[in-house]
Amino acid sequence: MRSVLIFYLCYLLCLGLGLACVVGVCVWNSWWRGGFAWDGSSHQFNWHPVLMVTGLVVLYGNGAVVYRIPLTWGQNKLPWKLLHAALMLLSLILSIVGLCAVFDFHNSNNTPNLYSLHSWIGIAATALFAMQWVVGMAGFLLPCSPISLRELLKPVHVWLGGSILLLSIAASISGINEKLFFALKGNQSYAMLPSEAVLGNTLGVLIVAFGLVVLKILANSEWQRPDSSPEDLAYSPVL
Amino acid sequence: MRSVLIFYLCYLLCLGLGLACVVGVCVWNSWWRGGFAWDGSSHQFNWHPVLMVTGLVVLYGNGAVVYRIPLTWGQNKLPWKLLHAALMLLSLILSIVGLCAVFDFHNSNNTPNLYSLHSWIGIAATALFAMQWVVGMAGFLLPCSPISLRELLKPVHVWLGGSILLLSIAASISGINEKLFFALKGNQSYAMLPSEAVLGNTLGVLIVAFGLVVLKILANSEWQRPDSSPEDLAYSPVL
Repeated sequence: MRSVLIFYLCYLLCLGLGLACVVGVCVWNSWWRGGFAWDGSSHQFNWHPVLMVTGLVVLYGNGAVVYRIPLTWGQNKLPWKLLHAALMLLSLILSIVGLCAVFDFHNSNNTPNLYSLHSWIGIAATALFAMQWVVGMAGFLLPCSPISLRELLKPVHVWLGGSILLLSIAASISGINEKLFFALKGNQSYAMLPSEAVLGNTLGVLIVAFGLVVLKILANSEWQRPDSSPEDLAYSPVL
Repeated sequence: MRSVLIFYLCYLLCLGLGLACVVGVCVWNSWWRGGFAWDGSSHQFNWHPVLMVTGLVVLYGNGAVVYRIPLTWGQNKLPWKLLHAALMLLSLILSIVGLCAVFDFHNSNNTPNLYSLHSWIGIAATALFAMQWVVGMAGFLLPCSPISLRELLKPVHVWLGGSILLLSIAASISGINEKLFFALKGNQSYAMLPSEAVLGNTLGVLIVAFGLVVLKILANSEWQRPDSSPEDLAYSPVL
């Protein structure tokens, strides 16, 4: 009972921090960075942080902990599996559109793509995530996939899931840091810590805190769905 | 037996990646960045990445997995506890000297301290690490600390340990990214991906890979020292 209570406190923290991250990145890019467009200008770039933080961090983290909610444990796993896959697909789509925003912005401004460490870590996170989604879909949702394969895949899927979140946090922190150095010059230089810098830094701290709470929820074995019953593993087919 | 074999493969990877990180950061700062000094110049700054990566990432990660080595499980825990504490103390000292290098460099050049997101995450990692070391020392090494306290502290110590590593990885990635943007200008700009940029980016990838292997070793319950026997918890006093 105490363990369940602590879970819900962590889950509430996860939801609250996730919401704060989305609000923070939206306020930063709409209020301080001038809002959004899709015209090759810096307003197009602004979609990049908003979509990556919302997709690859917040939606991804929330999608990852769906099975950990004790309320769902007595129920058929399939609807929760579909919700997990749907949240992850939405997260993946937002991430890909977020990458398109920055690639298109770079191309419009004759800036090379994929040279910074931030971009290397970020593209690795998204590529691994796309691979993880396809293998997860084939391995855990297609009815033809055998139970032995599912049992083999599960620990790899769980570990890779946490690793992708770590990559996306490292990419977010380096990206926000880089953007603030680029954007804040002259009298309002980053080193003077103007209000935009405090907001950006706070957003980074919130993202790290969100990631730590999600990884804590994933790591606690008491909060794992007590399943792996034959019905759960070989539930009714999707197709 | 298979699990032990996989552990040693992971441990070998952890040692190899750690060594590659130390060699990479040393080669970068001695060969490409002009070497080391303690005179307020950029050569003093060069100590910062070398000491943080060696201390707060590589030594820290190796110190964290000491208990997981199956070879040590049949032996008295105390020497391994002392080795864990000693490796962590050395890691903490290197990190603090690494911070002194950059603070002193900033002060010599009238640059403000602690304004960037990189510095916020890095200082949080080091402060939490110092706190973790003191609480760990008092809670697990002082003979007067009761067993009930040790049992209460252990999961917090393990979770905070992993969290500090995540912070130190995020700080390393944002720091290397920032340094490469600062250092590579003109014909040899970061965007042209000169050999120094490839080395710096590769170092970042190696750091992330090292962190993922350490966190994988820490997360696997089969690789946890099967202790918590009364003798292990109340071993012979240090003082």
